[in-house]
Amino acid sequence: MGHALELAREALLSGETPVGCVVADADGRIVGTGRNRREERRSAAAHAEMLAIEEACAALGDWRLTGCRMYVTVEPCPMCAGAVIIARLALLCYGARESASGSCGSVINLFMEDYGCSTEVFGGVMEEECAALMSGFFKKLRGK
Amino acid sequence: MGHALELAREALLSGETPVGCVVADADGRIVGTGRNRREERRSAAAHAEMLAIEEACAALGDWRLTGCRMYVTVEPCPMCAGAVIIARLALLCYGARESASGSCGSVINLFMEDYGCSTEVFGGVMEEECAALMSGFFKKLRGK
Repeated sequence: MGHALELAREALLSGETPVGCVVADADGRIVGTGRNRREERRSAAAHAEMLAIEEACAALGDWRLTGCRMYVTVEPCPMCAGAVIIARLALLCYGARESASGSCGSVINLFMEDYGCSTEVFGGVMEEECAALMSGFFKKLRGK
Repeated sequence: MGHALELAREALLSGETPVGCVVADADGRIVGTGRNRREERRSAAAHAEMLAIEEACAALGDWRLTGCRMYVTVEPCPMCAGAVIIARLALLCYGARESASGSCGSVINLFMEDYGCSTEVFGGVMEEECAALMSGFFKKLRGK
C-alpha cells in the first residue's frame, strides 16, 4: 500500500484525483502498477486499477490474474471492482472508502453478488493517509 | 445493433467469445466500435464495450460520454456496466441476456443502484440473433 500511496501522490501532482494501485503476484512480486490518468488520457477507462490490471495481464501473458493481489488507495468504482472480479484476483486491499461510487460496500458490495468470485476484500488499509490525500484534493478543487 | 452483430461475428471468426459493440453520439454518428479481444490481447480489460468506450473517448476528447448511446450484442458484465455508468452514457441497448456475469438484471442490475446515474437501459434488442451467436460458440467449445 505504501507503493500505491506514492503513485497516488504522483497522480495528485499531475492534477488527477489521487488514486494509486499496485498488483502483485502470488509471490508478492509487483507485476502491475497504475495511477489515475483520467484527465491526461481523457478516458473513462484510465483509472489506476484498470491500468494496473492491464499491465499485470501483459506481464503474466494471461487475462486471468488468479492468485494475484491488488492494493489500491481508494475503494474501487463499479468498473474497477468488476474488473477485479472478472480478472479473478485472489485479494483486494483498499484504503479510503468512497461514498459516491465505491462498490465494495459503500454504494453496493459487488463481491457479495453471485458472480462465482472468490476474491477476499479488505477495506480501511492505511485509511488515514489515503483519505487525507483525497480530502486535500477535493478541498483544493472546491477552493478554485 | 446490426453493426454490433457484424463485430461480434468478426470476434467469433478470431476465436473470441462473439461480442460486438458500437457507441454513437447524440446525433447517431458512430464514434467508437469494439469487439471482444480478450484472448488476442490476453487482457481482462479487452471486452468489446471497454474498447468501444475508449475509442469514443478518444474521438470526442472527453472521458464523459454524456448523450452517447451504446449498442452491444450481449448484456454487459460488472466491469463494462460500471464503465457505462462512470462514462455517463445516456442509453444502453443490449441483445442477449448473460446469466453468469450480466449486470443489467441477470446477476444484478447495477443501473438500479445509487450511483446517481441516469442511463436508460433496454435489453433483448435483436435478442435471437445475438443469443444464437453465443450459443453456437459455446456449443462448439463444449464439443472440442
